[in-house]
Amino acid sequence: MQEPDEPRVEAWERRTDVPLTIVGLAYLVVYAVQVLAFRGSDPGWFALDVVLWVIWGVFVVDFVGRLVLARRKWRFIGRHPFDLLVVAAPFFRFLRLLRLVAVVSSLARVLRDDFRGRVGSYLLVSVSLIGFVAALAVYEVERDAPEASITSFGEAVWWVLTTITTVGYGDRYPVTTEGRFVAAGLMLGGIAILGTVTAAIATWFLEQVGARDASEALHPAGPTETELLIAEVRALRARIDELDTRPHAGAPD
Amino acid sequence: MQEPDEPRVEAWERRTDVPLTIVGLAYLVVYAVQVLAFRGSDPGWFALDVVLWVIWGVFVVDFVGRLVLARRKWRFIGRHPFDLLVVAAPFFRFLRLLRLVAVVSSLARVLRDDFRGRVGSYLLVSVSLIGFVAALAVYEVERDAPEASITSFGEAVWWVLTTITTVGYGDRYPVTTEGRFVAAGLMLGGIAILGTVTAAIATWFLEQVGARDASEALHPAGPTETELLIAEVRALRARIDELDTRPHAGAPD
Amino acid sequence: MQEPDEPRVEAWERRTDVPLTIVGLAYLVVYAVQVLAFRGSDPGWFALDVVLWVIWGVFVVDFVGRLVLARRKWRFIGRHPFDLLVVAAPFFRFLRLLRLVAVVSSLARVLRDDFRGRVGSYLLVSVSLIGFVAALAVYEVERDAPEASITSFGEAVWWVLTTITTVGYGDRYPVTTEGRFVAAGLMLGGIAILGTVTAAIATWFLEQVGARDASEALHPAGPTETELLIAEVRALRARIDELDTRPHAGAPD
Amino acid sequence: MQEPDEPRVEAWERRTDVPLTIVGLAYLVVYAVQVLAFRGSDPGWFALDVVLWVIWGVFVVDFVGRLVLARRKWRFIGRHPFDLLVVAAPFFRFLRLLRLVAVVSSLARVLRDDFRGRVGSYLLVSVSLIGFVAALAVYEVERDAPEASITSFGEAVWWVLTTITTVGYGDRYPVTTEGRFVAAGLMLGGIAILGTVTAAIATWFLEQVGARDASEALHPAGPTETELLIAEVRALRARIDELDTRPHAGAPD
Repeated sequence: MQEPDEPRVEAWERRTDVPLTIVGLAYLVVYAVQVLAFRGSDPGWFALDVVLWVIWGVFVVDFVGRLVLARRKWRFIGRHPFDLLVVAAPFFRFLRLLRLVAVVSSLARVLRDDFRGRVGSYLLVSVSLIGFVAALAVYEVERDAPEASITSFGEAVWWVLTTITTVGYGDRYPVTTEGRFVAAGLMLGGIAILGTVTAAIATWFLEQVGARDASEALHPAGPTETELLIAEVRALRARIDELDTRPHAGAPD
Repeated sequence: MQEPDEPRVEAWERRTDVPLTIVGLAYLVVYAVQVLAFRGSDPGWFALDVVLWVIWGVFVVDFVGRLVLARRKWRFIGRHPFDLLVVAAPFFRFLRLLRLVAVVSSLARVLRDDFRGRVGSYLLVSVSLIGFVAALAVYEVERDAPEASITSFGEAVWWVLTTITTVGYGDRYPVTTEGRFVAAGLMLGGIAILGTVTAAIATWFLEQVGARDASEALHPAGPTETELLIAEVRALRARIDELDTRPHAGAPD
Repeated sequence: MQEPDEPRVEAWERRTDVPLTIVGLAYLVVYAVQVLAFRGSDPGWFALDVVLWVIWGVFVVDFVGRLVLARRKWRFIGRHPFDLLVVAAPFFRFLRLLRLVAVVSSLARVLRDDFRGRVGSYLLVSVSLIGFVAALAVYEVERDAPEASITSFGEAVWWVLTTITTVGYGDRYPVTTEGRFVAAGLMLGGIAILGTVTAAIATWFLEQVGARDASEALHPAGPTETELLIAEVRALRARIDELDTRPHAGAPD
Repeated sequence: MQEPDEPRVEAWERRTDVPLTIVGLAYLVVYAVQVLAFRGSDPGWFALDVVLWVIWGVFVVDFVGRLVLARRKWRFIGRHPFDLLVVAAPFFRFLRLLRLVAVVSSLARVLRDDFRGRVGSYLLVSVSLIGFVAALAVYEVERDAPEASITSFGEAVWWVLTTITTVGYGDRYPVTTEGRFVAAGLMLGGIAILGTVTAAIATWFLEQVGARDASEALHPAGPTETELLIAEVRALRARIDELDTRPHAGAPD
């Protein structure tokens, strides 16, 4: 809930969360079928493209609706840069790629409230979602390029894995401009999330052996400064209780 | 000890820790001999495969035993996802690879209690164990693949090293689907652990020159906020002691 | 403001900030036009080189001016190592590359005060600036080298991206000594900044789901030690208020 | 000073610090001359090898001396694993490489006390030292190998840079077993140190714009929890002062 002062936007978002999740997932499923089952020249490709444009319309309606309801419209736009792509997409060249960013971002908004408090699961779902969409997108734009090294969906998934972990063997890499834009998005968006996942795994790992963080791993366990401080404050409180219950010096009893 | 409310599972685990470590290590040794000394078509390979299946049976018995003893069975399964592979493995395709994950996970459980408090050693043993198993597994599945670049065990070890540090030269990389699954496991599991090892080395390194963390490295040494706070609370305590021992204003003495 | 005890340098810097930003940007624009539109043998290249030398003179005047005004000159030089390149550049071999470092460093100084408090924006501008300059520089020195793999500006940008994220596919890499110096600067300077950007994205990401840091991500949400401490101190204060308002034991009312 | 309870070892170390630094640097200089100016079959190579063995003897004497003076000898060995290589080196195969590790480790010990408090400088010296030695060592073992890609010292330095930053283009990589051991040492030792350098640069960078850490970078500046707590404790102290100076309720004045 980023706009505590935007009650109408929040009300709209609460009501559209479930339908938008379904519409967003539908977009991804149709896109996946289109990329994996057809090629750009098939009639089936064109048919599914029409379906994608219709689904896209729902997102435009949702964004325009929220913008109309927002009291401070410029701040709303500034806080939802990815959602803006919904409207702006047709004016850019890399249309399809930008639409994917907007869809993933919408799904992230919806999932966010669902996973509140279960960050581990949210991170894994997010990184899987981004990785899956990046693999689909890079496969779509690379497969027919001359000298392309990513020519099957399996290879696209493998490429996503080597990229998102920053291993980067270089046995597979995009050669088209569109593919490199996908790579840029994956690197900038996905690496940060995977870094968080990695940090979380490392934290969990250290927990298994009873150390709270990496810096503690090589230290003797002794109390932390904050623990010392809490002990100090508790002693202070006990001291005051003692002052209170004990009869005052010189007072008659 | 993840189940303080599962006394029977804990009792079982206490009794089976030592035998399971031995059985797990035996599995790894037999697997290493099988992969390093034989090929899939040798009779020796088949003989050792029988031995591995028998050892495997011990793990199945251990998991089923713990599951039977558990009071809340679904939560037990949810908390031991890798152990579940013990039973589920035969139903999956990448059987051998999944069995290795389960064996490494079992060893990790056993070693964990052993190394409690000595995190540095535990991390080094874990990362070595994961690296060694990954090298064996990738060597097994890659060596006979056409266009494979990992064709000796030494090259598999070198590949593990370049992958786990995320350097990823790309002079060696898996080309088979199974090999890429091994790589995915190594990347996701091992990088987090090596990241922890690296953080621990960096911490130790900074300790050598008398700085407590990286952010302190470029700062003048001055007291931290928490140190200031401790001083403040101590002064408060002294103030109250003074209030107490001094005769009260206007009180007869 | 690094020299609170250098009032004259600060006064100079306040007055020259705006003109220096314009001059620095002009240098970069002219350099970009020169590299992207001409080649080393064109007459246009030579004409723009003269322009660059004139602009360069402004930086020399600025540095000499600040040095003259500084009271402690050696400390001033020690604190502005990159600015020193302004004067020292002609005596080094990799003249143009060093000048770029000095220009970027000057722009960073100017932008710094402008973005105070908006670190996210500052980081993005910095990383874009460093990346853009590195792409221009590597393109300039690599494009005519035999066996070069970076032969267009687009490929230079792609190389910057794979380098700064440490993915390093190795499909594009510098082969000249100058190009490798650019790479060294990009790796050492840019990776640190991008690391900070990544950490910031990860922080923002965790904020979206209501967790404050990665280590919290897998924990139940319970209060932190500091929160416990605050509660403890507040209770202490309430206790003292109670002591004060309640009539003293045994005192007449 | 790791052995506060080893007064004789400390006394020895205080006296031998300066001579050992000189001897260690001499070893590195002679090794660099040998590798850069000669080849394994030259008579000059053999002559410098004799010099290196003599210098090596000094390190053996130093280690044996410290071991003799130590009261708890096994703990001493456990805390100086790299120094042990001094004595153990002749019994291992990768003799020269292990000697280099021992020499670098000795220099690190000596430099450590010198740089106490100036961590930034110490890190830069350490990473340069490790990088330089790794480049020399990998150049020595790779240059005559068939299919080697590291065939000049400049390429070895470039390889060190791409490895230590984990970029790993893969245009240069070691192909011999010895070279891969050098790479393993560089990865495990150097990456941790460079990671610390990077963290320090990022910290410095954030300091320039007035933010104290990455997580603060995207937050509004508000007071931290600890600052709130300090304010709370100060208010508490003022409250008690007030209690003390004000005449007690009902007390005669």
